[in-house]
Amino acid sequence: MDHSGRQRRLQAALAESNLDTLLVTHPPNIRYLCGFTGSAGVLLTGDRGTTFFTDGRYRTQARAEVVGPRIVIARKSPLLAAAEFLAASRIRSVTRLGLESQSVTLGQHEQLRRILKGKWKLVSAPPLVERARMIKDKEEIRRIRASVQLGASLFQIARKTIRPGVKEVDVAAALEYEARRAGAEGMSFSTIIAAGKRSAVVHGRASEARIPPCGFVVCDFGVILAGYCSDRTRTVHVGRPTRSERQMYQAVLDAQQAAIAEVRGGATAAAVDKAARKILRDNKLAKYFTHSTGHGLGLEIHEAPRLAAGQEQVLEPGMVITIEPGAYIPGKHGVRIEDVVVVTSTGCEVLAPTHNELIVV
Amino acid sequence: MDHSGRQRRLQAALAESNLDTLLVTHPPNIRYLCGFTGSAGVLLTGDRGTTFFTDGRYRTQARAEVVGPRIVIARKSPLLAAAEFLAASRIRSVTRLGLESQSVTLGQHEQLRRILKGKWKLVSAPPLVERARMIKDKEEIRRIRASVQLGASLFQIARKTIRPGVKEVDVAAALEYEARRAGAEGMSFSTIIAAGKRSAVVHGRASEARIPPCGFVVCDFGVILAGYCSDRTRTVHVGRPTRSERQMYQAVLDAQQAAIAEVRGGATAAAVDKAARKILRDNKLAKYFTHSTGHGLGLEIHEAPRLAAGQEQVLEPGMVITIEPGAYIPGKHGVRIEDVVVVTSTGCEVLAPTHNELIVV
Repeated sequence: MDHSGRQRRLQAALAESNLDTLLVTHPPNIRYLCGFTGSAGVLLTGDRGTTFFTDGRYRTQARAEVVGPRIVIARKSPLLAAAEFLAASRIRSVTRLGLESQSVTLGQHEQLRRILKGKWKLVSAPPLVERARMIKDKEEIRRIRASVQLGASLFQIARKTIRPGVKEVDVAAALEYEARRAGAEGMSFSTIIAAGKRSAVVHGRASEARIPPCGFVVCDFGVILAGYCSDRTRTVHVGRPTRSERQMYQAVLDAQQAAIAEVRGGATAAAVDKAARKILRDNKLAKYFTHSTGHGLGLEIHEAPRLAAGQEQVLEPGMVITIEPGAYIPGKHGVRIEDVVVVTSTGCEVLAPTHNELIVV
Repeated sequence: MDHSGRQRRLQAALAESNLDTLLVTHPPNIRYLCGFTGSAGVLLTGDRGTTFFTDGRYRTQARAEVVGPRIVIARKSPLLAAAEFLAASRIRSVTRLGLESQSVTLGQHEQLRRILKGKWKLVSAPPLVERARMIKDKEEIRRIRASVQLGASLFQIARKTIRPGVKEVDVAAALEYEARRAGAEGMSFSTIIAAGKRSAVVHGRASEARIPPCGFVVCDFGVILAGYCSDRTRTVHVGRPTRSERQMYQAVLDAQQAAIAEVRGGATAAAVDKAARKILRDNKLAKYFTHSTGHGLGLEIHEAPRLAAGQEQVLEPGMVITIEPGAYIPGKHGVRIEDVVVVTSTGCEVLAPTHNELIVV
């Protein structure tokens, strides 16, 4: 990974944002910038260099992983250590310290203010690292591709395991086991296996419920492989689907294809969302599509951009996003189909594409 | 679960803290108070009642789970919806709104300030819900006990799987699979299987590394069962341990037993930590014990109290804490032994106790 390039570009962005130093507190941002994968650490970066603070538990790990910054092993919390380091630093005039406002808590802010008093001016920084992270480089795309491919291969296990009477969690257990065996560090979110009426629950985490003799089963899961997340949904049908079930599935699939067709460098996130919503409206399913069309992913399962109404973010080549329309009729059933795509200048590449016709098990 | 009692006691605590309303934003606190297990929601509670805000994805789930408050399904973010609800409420004079300062981010605080302007005075609330959560009720202890018992039973799988040449992740995969099959919603943290030199890495998440022919293997993992976490560490030895390895193991075990002997209602958290540290100092291992002696657990894997130097928190009956001293010699090896105990007025109960003599595999 190009950690030094990332650190250099961040320093340029700091100057443009009129910040002297940035306190990076969001763990995925820290990992992105310097490679540290632990949970306790903060990174200070400014024109006088970059310093990483962690605690004694991460001494060995920090030395093995961190690329670039000086490493300080603190005897107190890394945030406190960074604040005291700043308080002790010689600065000529009041200096602007940028904070990650989506990550720093009110309690941490009060602590920082107390230690840094009038010497540093604490300001909410724009999401500089998140912006950089939106555009994936070659190595990141390679890793996401591998992660999506592993996730896709696990659908074969779901397909084989799903049968009437089997518990949803047993389907989840089987595919999570294979994910681990194949090198996944974990799942990128709680595995969703939602069968029958439960398929109408958007976030239907695999439960002790047994798969009924007939109905949809929404399977939505992803793995974390070498730090990068995958995310993919397939909806299968147990037993013979009715005509209206087939129509509902086809409408969601058409919505997904329409959204994918809209993706290209220069399109807005809102336009992609609108394309999916239009098809569902034409099929009288718009009110059952209760979430956004997709999201970026990478080191985190949910990253910028967000594909929803009003999101004027322009898509750029190198962004990696999910396209996942769905329809959920409360008390009845639901369908979702999701793929990960890489934005290109002229369109997009669907990672590990499949035909996506309704699979009956 | 006694959700209504919890809500009632919180309202009494609000009055004592001179707060009119509390905005509960930390998801485990929301779950504790009203039963909602989803990820997007906020709870407003005050003398004029309790209201829960979530978004369309959680419509069905909120109606099934939430006990007590009115439910508002917002078309925007639940936080924004709650803020607008407060801004529109008729209040006579400036009113004090408590915020959870360990959960509200700087960005959210700015958003709240903008919407609530001078009408509501935003103040950092004391950790009222966290304080209540420290003392577990009978049903919570029942669930934690079941969670610890499941976790303990999985050690048999680790013991059978650990052999020279096996990958650490394959040990993790085997026990995580059984955890799922036995009803666990997931693991309470990334499973640690750290073999040979890696046993010196305190947070040595199971890796692709193969277990060497000889040396310690630290196994630290927990499950989430019915919402409640377990946490337990056993260190086994592959091949015949040297005399100094046996001594090191015994010192850590003695430290753990000394700490457990110190636990009772009325003892301070610091005293328990000190008891463990004293034994390790007597064995010249104090400098290799680089973390605290333990922590509370329940809905979260790390909760108050924290068992470390300087922590004057008095232990009370009903608290559930880990006791987990360790020693880690960088580049060489490490040992940790951990149990979960329930504090009683006269001592403590170790959950799912075992003999804890060094197991050689």
